[in-house]
Amino acid sequence: MSEDARFGLDKKVRLLGPLPLDSGGALAPVDLAYETYGALNADASNAILICHALTGDQYVASTHPVTGKDGWWVRMVGPGNPIDTDRHFIICANVIGSCMGSSGPATMNPATEKPWGMDFPVLTIADMVRAQALLLDHLGIERLHAVIGGSMGGMQAISWTALYPERVKSAVIIASAARHSAQNIAFHEVGRQAIMADPRWRGGAYYADDDPPSSGLAVARMAAHITYLSEEGLTEKFGRRLQDRDSKTFGFDADFQVESYLRHQGISFVDRFDANSYLYITRAMDYFDLAEAHGGTLAHAFKGSQTRFCLISFDTDWLYPTSESRTIVHALNAAGAAASFVELSSAFGHDSFLLENPEMNRIVDGFLKAGET
Amino acid sequence: MSEDARFGLDKKVRLLGPLPLDSGGALAPVDLAYETYGALNADASNAILICHALTGDQYVASTHPVTGKDGWWVRMVGPGNPIDTDRHFIICANVIGSCMGSSGPATMNPATEKPWGMDFPVLTIADMVRAQALLLDHLGIERLHAVIGGSMGGMQAISWTALYPERVKSAVIIASAARHSAQNIAFHEVGRQAIMADPRWRGGAYYADDDPPSSGLAVARMAAHITYLSEEGLTEKFGRRLQDRDSKTFGFDADFQVESYLRHQGISFVDRFDANSYLYITRAMDYFDLAEAHGGTLAHAFKGSQTRFCLISFDTDWLYPTSESRTIVHALNAAGAAASFVELSSAFGHDSFLLENPEMNRIVDGFLKAGET
Repeated sequence: MSEDARFGLDKKVRLLGPLPLDSGGALAPVDLAYETYGALNADASNAILICHALTGDQYVASTHPVTGKDGWWVRMVGPGNPIDTDRHFIICANVIGSCMGSSGPATMNPATEKPWGMDFPVLTIADMVRAQALLLDHLGIERLHAVIGGSMGGMQAISWTALYPERVKSAVIIASAARHSAQNIAFHEVGRQAIMADPRWRGGAYYADDDPPSSGLAVARMAAHITYLSEEGLTEKFGRRLQDRDSKTFGFDADFQVESYLRHQGISFVDRFDANSYLYITRAMDYFDLAEAHGGTLAHAFKGSQTRFCLISFDTDWLYPTSESRTIVHALNAAGAAASFVELSSAFGHDSFLLENPEMNRIVDGFLKAGET
Repeated sequence: MSEDARFGLDKKVRLLGPLPLDSGGALAPVDLAYETYGALNADASNAILICHALTGDQYVASTHPVTGKDGWWVRMVGPGNPIDTDRHFIICANVIGSCMGSSGPATMNPATEKPWGMDFPVLTIADMVRAQALLLDHLGIERLHAVIGGSMGGMQAISWTALYPERVKSAVIIASAARHSAQNIAFHEVGRQAIMADPRWRGGAYYADDDPPSSGLAVARMAAHITYLSEEGLTEKFGRRLQDRDSKTFGFDADFQVESYLRHQGISFVDRFDANSYLYITRAMDYFDLAEAHGGTLAHAFKGSQTRFCLISFDTDWLYPTSESRTIVHALNAAGAAASFVELSSAFGHDSFLLENPEMNRIVDGFLKAGET
């Protein structure tokens, strides 16, 4: 397996593979687009892998090339921040299946020299992690100082500890779960059905004429976005306030601020995300059940683990509620692994891990520093 | 105002109106399709009005003409049941804006002799209640023994007590709220956007060629349906169980039982419901804020009320959680109104009010009987 291309300011590598997949197939070549921050030290012991969430990307602390916005975790990653670019070598790779440069349904199928579309193989979280392991091999990193992720990033982080325990010194798993619940699956299925109901989806073969199923994807995003917030947060932020108007219009325009906000979330999302990638990544998340791969007992995933674990949940997160983190902690305890766990208070539901939260920063900072001594 | 038509086995009346609407317009004529059960007694003192929910209808205890299924509340309504067809005269009318015979976007606009479509006036919950009051006038019922409803039916019931306090002896409000929260509005907006994103919606003018926006309506229903259930209920009912298969398909068919169930909910709904009605009724619910119409103080809605109130909520209902019922109870207490309130335990979320729940039946039975002595 070797690198045969690296181009652009953004880092990208083409690994020849093949990468064996849980579906039984394989992916070759494997394109991985990634960003790095800071410098790898002489013994390659300061590397931190950050795993991104469903609609996240590698631009964890650099400007997003499409939106022009700051990286999605600049509050956590940067000089002097808990994930410290002065101290750590930080890697964040776009997951395979996604649409920011890594292999996914919008990239070229070498067999047809056309975009994969729905011929792209269905992936799992473990497949994403195995691809990241190839990237670490390529970068000459044998062992991670830490793997860190929130939401789907946490699913990857915990999968890292199960698949490659010897390669992970510490793991930080935030607002996440060891499996997707029936309600999680249900919300994802609504999003997928919204995309596939859009006539412009055309079985996923919409790349040729630049006419993607934007309406369906926007609806999918709107539905998902509600699950990222809390009832309390929505009430605090919007309540029943009207949108730039003194009174109701008795029509179907966005009367309420919360309607306008949601529509904006849907519309802006389609500019930066591929509908097929949304299908593939939600599917990978729905398939995620770490216990299942270990005979139905989650603790078996961590047998003999020397990894240090830090789990953080948020009290208003109803997508991956505290009980899901607690299930992981109980399994870690049963396996005799070193685990710390905190439930933080925040009004903002699941999205809290992306927002300003000094307490979260303090915890991650302390946990990482304790692992460096 | 007089009846000029009554036809079919199902009862229907055309009232000349005009019915003044909160939007400032008026509706004329006003068609109201309704069912009755039991017999009105000599002094017309045994009438109970049941108000239905968003996608409900007048077939509360009779076979649905489209689906062939039993009425939606046969557990509560029938001989010897709490709402007793041997003791009470029970009326349930399809709300205006709906699609089971009452005036709505699919009915004829007398000005154009074509279906109203989006020219139908935007309604409020109070408009629906005022139309029901016309029906009671028509039926010669001055005062209701009780008005009863769950979910949107509860919004109508509580509006009855505020608009026509002298006409309501008792009110039973189940799994409901005195206003729609930001999260409630957000979920409805997703549904509306799903419908309006369907190219077959065509600005609501889809009646002529019998090609309605079924895909969009099915997605709307799927999203809403999740909010009717609880995480606990979904886990109990489906968990992560696969659908008639031994293993995952690594495709996008319904692998999980919960996916298959949700798809079925979406697909079967479109056979019995009109997409434009879904837009209009969700809008009416979003506009609902009983305090707003009373200077922002909910208690003012009940000033001097002689109505007896019974409120019931369910502990796993996250659509209209117990806190919403408690807000109503506090307002009733502040207004000096007679109110009883119970939170019941049930695994099944908001839908609990439609399901077998002996405790709920006992409470409604006792409350109604106490009002008869």
